[in-house]
Amino acid sequence: MRAARLHEYTEEMENALSIDDVDEPQIERSDGVVVEIDGAGWCQTDNHVIEGMWADYVPQDLPLTLGHENAGTVVETGEEVTNVDEGDQVICHPVLTCGKCRPCRQGEDMYCENIAFPGLTHDGGFAEQLLTSERSVIPLPDGIDPAEIAPHADAGITAYHAVKKAVDELVPGDYAVVVGVGGLGHIGIQCLDAMSAASIVALDIKEEARELAADLGADHTLDPTSDDVPGELEALSDGTMAQQVIDFVGGDETLSMAPDVVAAGGDHHVVGYGGHIHEPAQALVDGEFSYRGTLVGQYTELQELVSLVEDGAVELRTSRYGLDEINDVAAALEHNQIEGRTVIVP
Amino acid sequence: MRAARLHEYTEEMENALSIDDVDEPQIERSDGVVVEIDGAGWCQTDNHVIEGMWADYVPQDLPLTLGHENAGTVVETGEEVTNVDEGDQVICHPVLTCGKCRPCRQGEDMYCENIAFPGLTHDGGFAEQLLTSERSVIPLPDGIDPAEIAPHADAGITAYHAVKKAVDELVPGDYAVVVGVGGLGHIGIQCLDAMSAASIVALDIKEEARELAADLGADHTLDPTSDDVPGELEALSDGTMAQQVIDFVGGDETLSMAPDVVAAGGDHHVVGYGGHIHEPAQALVDGEFSYRGTLVGQYTELQELVSLVEDGAVELRTSRYGLDEINDVAAALEHNQIEGRTVIVP
Amino acid sequence: MRAARLHEYTEEMENALSIDDVDEPQIERSDGVVVEIDGAGWCQTDNHVIEGMWADYVPQDLPLTLGHENAGTVVETGEEVTNVDEGDQVICHPVLTCGKCRPCRQGEDMYCENIAFPGLTHDGGFAEQLLTSERSVIPLPDGIDPAEIAPHADAGITAYHAVKKAVDELVPGDYAVVVGVGGLGHIGIQCLDAMSAASIVALDIKEEARELAADLGADHTLDPTSDDVPGELEALSDGTMAQQVIDFVGGDETLSMAPDVVAAGGDHHVVGYGGHIHEPAQALVDGEFSYRGTLVGQYTELQELVSLVEDGAVELRTSRYGLDEINDVAAALEHNQIEGRTVIVP
Amino acid sequence: MRAARLHEYTEEMENALSIDDVDEPQIERSDGVVVEIDGAGWCQTDNHVIEGMWADYVPQDLPLTLGHENAGTVVETGEEVTNVDEGDQVICHPVLTCGKCRPCRQGEDMYCENIAFPGLTHDGGFAEQLLTSERSVIPLPDGIDPAEIAPHADAGITAYHAVKKAVDELVPGDYAVVVGVGGLGHIGIQCLDAMSAASIVALDIKEEARELAADLGADHTLDPTSDDVPGELEALSDGTMAQQVIDFVGGDETLSMAPDVVAAGGDHHVVGYGGHIHEPAQALVDGEFSYRGTLVGQYTELQELVSLVEDGAVELRTSRYGLDEINDVAAALEHNQIEGRTVIVP
Repeated sequence: MRAARLHEYTEEMENALSIDDVDEPQIERSDGVVVEIDGAGWCQTDNHVIEGMWADYVPQDLPLTLGHENAGTVVETGEEVTNVDEGDQVICHPVLTCGKCRPCRQGEDMYCENIAFPGLTHDGGFAEQLLTSERSVIPLPDGIDPAEIAPHADAGITAYHAVKKAVDELVPGDYAVVVGVGGLGHIGIQCLDAMSAASIVALDIKEEARELAADLGADHTLDPTSDDVPGELEALSDGTMAQQVIDFVGGDETLSMAPDVVAAGGDHHVVGYGGHIHEPAQALVDGEFSYRGTLVGQYTELQELVSLVEDGAVELRTSRYGLDEINDVAAALEHNQIEGRTVIVP
Repeated sequence: MRAARLHEYTEEMENALSIDDVDEPQIERSDGVVVEIDGAGWCQTDNHVIEGMWADYVPQDLPLTLGHENAGTVVETGEEVTNVDEGDQVICHPVLTCGKCRPCRQGEDMYCENIAFPGLTHDGGFAEQLLTSERSVIPLPDGIDPAEIAPHADAGITAYHAVKKAVDELVPGDYAVVVGVGGLGHIGIQCLDAMSAASIVALDIKEEARELAADLGADHTLDPTSDDVPGELEALSDGTMAQQVIDFVGGDETLSMAPDVVAAGGDHHVVGYGGHIHEPAQALVDGEFSYRGTLVGQYTELQELVSLVEDGAVELRTSRYGLDEINDVAAALEHNQIEGRTVIVP
Repeated sequence: MRAARLHEYTEEMENALSIDDVDEPQIERSDGVVVEIDGAGWCQTDNHVIEGMWADYVPQDLPLTLGHENAGTVVETGEEVTNVDEGDQVICHPVLTCGKCRPCRQGEDMYCENIAFPGLTHDGGFAEQLLTSERSVIPLPDGIDPAEIAPHADAGITAYHAVKKAVDELVPGDYAVVVGVGGLGHIGIQCLDAMSAASIVALDIKEEARELAADLGADHTLDPTSDDVPGELEALSDGTMAQQVIDFVGGDETLSMAPDVVAAGGDHHVVGYGGHIHEPAQALVDGEFSYRGTLVGQYTELQELVSLVEDGAVELRTSRYGLDEINDVAAALEHNQIEGRTVIVP
Repeated sequence: MRAARLHEYTEEMENALSIDDVDEPQIERSDGVVVEIDGAGWCQTDNHVIEGMWADYVPQDLPLTLGHENAGTVVETGEEVTNVDEGDQVICHPVLTCGKCRPCRQGEDMYCENIAFPGLTHDGGFAEQLLTSERSVIPLPDGIDPAEIAPHADAGITAYHAVKKAVDELVPGDYAVVVGVGGLGHIGIQCLDAMSAASIVALDIKEEARELAADLGADHTLDPTSDDVPGELEALSDGTMAQQVIDFVGGDETLSMAPDVVAAGGDHHVVGYGGHIHEPAQALVDGEFSYRGTLVGQYTELQELVSLVEDGAVELRTSRYGLDEINDVAAALEHNQIEGRTVIVP
């Protein structure tokens, strides 16, 4: 079958992946599931993988088929699989988990002691077929197109997971700031709007992104290049500032906003990455705020997100490309030329 | 009356404060309370105030009487005070609060919109008398000497507050790391031991401090200058690492331990300060850990700590000095020559 | 001034209260506030007070001016009041609290050790003026009519408080059941809709009430006299049942639904009262569900509800009557002839 | 092999079970595990099963081998088992779970949609061998005798689970009441003592039980037949009463204590069963307290309990009997003649 593979780390997105002919995946365990890919979302993390940014964090052997936002149709199942049948349409939780270690038993899929991450540590979904497991597939409700929902497999669950933590700390009258209205941010705003009554302030440097934010439920939008963000928040919140900040960018500049915009006792959720935190400990003490890292999300959270999609509470803005166009997509995202989310249809 | 006052910011602890003769405080509100100081703890923060480190964070006019860990005997009460009478022995919560703003109504005394902080923003307790309010005094149980308990007014409540947040996330089998077994750390270890069944690992570069830690309930002690802290923790915890780290030092080196020692989903509580966080956002994302600032504690938490003291669960290691010796104390702490906690007895 | 007072407990609502001429209230403390009543909501609890149902639970001396859902205009303030001025329009939290005891310091206004409850233990708001305190008034945002919002002072805060506890346990895909779409229930549905993404199932025996529920955000409505409630819920929730039930009726029949409709690990919130729980302990054990009593709400929760009203997320269905018509209102509610909420305008 | 089986429901404990010769269990799935029983605890629930009390709550076909508190040595493993090997000593979580349904994915083993409960719905451990699964076994630390720890498989985990919920609501200075110091209660007291700094008040009608409670960490003991429990608690707690009550008896009389002994906002945890709740809704509303059913516990909670045992924080008081003596044990427990916990050694 055809698969888009990374053979060496590079900064040149235009030639990053090659389309190879590889063997179809084989089921080796009783819980194995093979999914024919109907759509696989392209993610900023794919660019980071191509650049080698994950080589220090996870075990990674090249060549590697990328693609960790996968949805499609079950074509084969292991002998003890009961939750799905051939022909079922599914979305794939991005990681494979053992189901036996203590984190798995607590529902913390991302902390599995035997984790595998197709697209990062194993072959992913920019291919005709993907080997996954019964523990990683969620059947789709009727009427939901796998290619349409695919980005929720990582972008969606990551945004949802961060928002869910924020929502636990928000009450009516509070302010939540969403930093960056791109692939993740535009989902995050909708989740916040559906799950809390807090006021949402969206920050983005692009006007179209701010307009999209307002469309999707943001109560206020600000342009950090021209607006005085702390000053505007102070006025809006009567001096209390933002109880929760969800930073989908994670750049030096966005991370450094925390001491000025997070309310006492509040949180700056670090979802995007690329930049650094450089802050005196005293700033965290004086404002009693936290930087909280956030990593993808749980299988059950993806179920909850699918439920939001089914209810019409969250919609995706996507565009589709063939496997042959994959390097164009990589380059376009690198140059910040993508609105919403891109799906590869093999 | 006599009071130890700061007239200008300085790095020279030996001559930092002068003993002035000032007017006794006068009650102006119905809830005012004047306390004759039986003991006032000296705190690392006093050194930081002397150096001017708080001038950017809070309003501060010099000259200023320092001292924010106060306990003593009520000598005068405002006309609507009902919770204490003249002659009652009390410990003073470190801040004065309005009781009316939303944070006060939520019990979040440290976020009071009209906060005053004797010893930082108003005259404090290194003096014969202190003006405080009914909202800031807690009557002591019989048999507890104010001079003995005074450091709990800030060191104690700050350690307790951080530990309480950590305990909420700890279950039996988990590991908690206490960084720094000084004035706060030696209280923190006892609170952890009383309130949770997690294993406690104490880190300190001084042998006597590690021995104190073991005496007070630490299950393991490590010397970060010679022990491989991540390696030892990995062995102890079977690879899971520490669910909670409580950093009473807050130096560059202790803050930078987080990515290597905090378990997935865990927290590095920033209690001490002086150093900086310098970490890539990706580290927080990959390990899904948090840096959580922590600032003093609530009035009701000081009640809880007094209850622990009354039950014999927490003891303080203190030494006492007169008001005339106060600059010697400042200098000794600066040179790391103080074990436990120092109390000024005016 | 004129006041509607109860002189003896009775079952005859038609003559329950008499309109007396009484002295205007006098401020005696520094935090006292006198409010001219613009509107005071009539509540099922007023009927219960008239019947003597609260005589065993709280100290109560007759004659007593009823009315615990009060809003109006400040006409006099004690000498240390700073949060409101004469002329300000306010809604009154239903109880007076000391602000000094441990529950008050934790924000638990309803557990105040020195609580007073105008309308139940002290003279209430079915009168021209009400004596309250700075701790019990919340200034209204511009454009909100006190007579319109008055029922939120008790009906609203009670519904909000119960819903807030339920929302903490709800995630997208869950089912929440609201039992009874009357004065409290119609507020509860709107709060649920604003604050969570769970599916809402409203139960009421009256068709108009079910229609109102659907208007205000219920996803499904059921008539417990003709629908098989457990069966319908089982079908809707794919067998999981309702994670949270909020019972605004509290009758024998509604309380006995719990073992059949509450999901494992879920809660049946007891807001309304009048009936009894009669269940084997084994039912609670087998289903691991809880009966959770709920009592009014906190001052800060009333602030949050006012914020929801300001945002347009919660609207009240009210009708207004003069003080002279008060016994007609009592009788009408007793006979279940009131839709929405009734406000007395003195 | 030999197995103690129930052939028909009966009130006569002296002849309740017969020792039958049955086939050894066979592994049919890849995750199957056969354990040779070293010890199986006898539980009050076994008496309830014999009486038919569970026939309405779970599917139950007679004859049935009882025994749901099992520990022993692995003698055979399915082909994909990795967590245990033949020869490993293990304690068995009491239920078999699918690991695939949403509750399993959330760690809520007891809510598994495909649950099997050896000893209640399938053949249990009063036999030479037990068929269980990799998901239900926890390897024991070195030096822990399976026969000694067996009762923790149900009595222990049930006590721990209830205490863990209570501990989440307890702070220093609070009071926790333990009702009944029998097989579960004596474990519960030790868990409370290890995991919180609250004061523990133990209630039992037997003097030896109260003495055991004091030995194991109770701060106060009361005899409900002669002591004025609410009055004593009021004096101890300065009027606040007990924030948490853990009722290991669950009889009419113990359940009816709640309105008088539970603090505002507190919980009465229903662990034992047999009696009924008969309370007006108004009592729950006025005191804002909850009745919280509690059912066994999670697999990860059993891991945590094993960790407490390994640390020496919890010890069991057990006595051992052979399979032939099993009906004597049943009768003795029925007549309340058993102290601590009884283990059957097949």
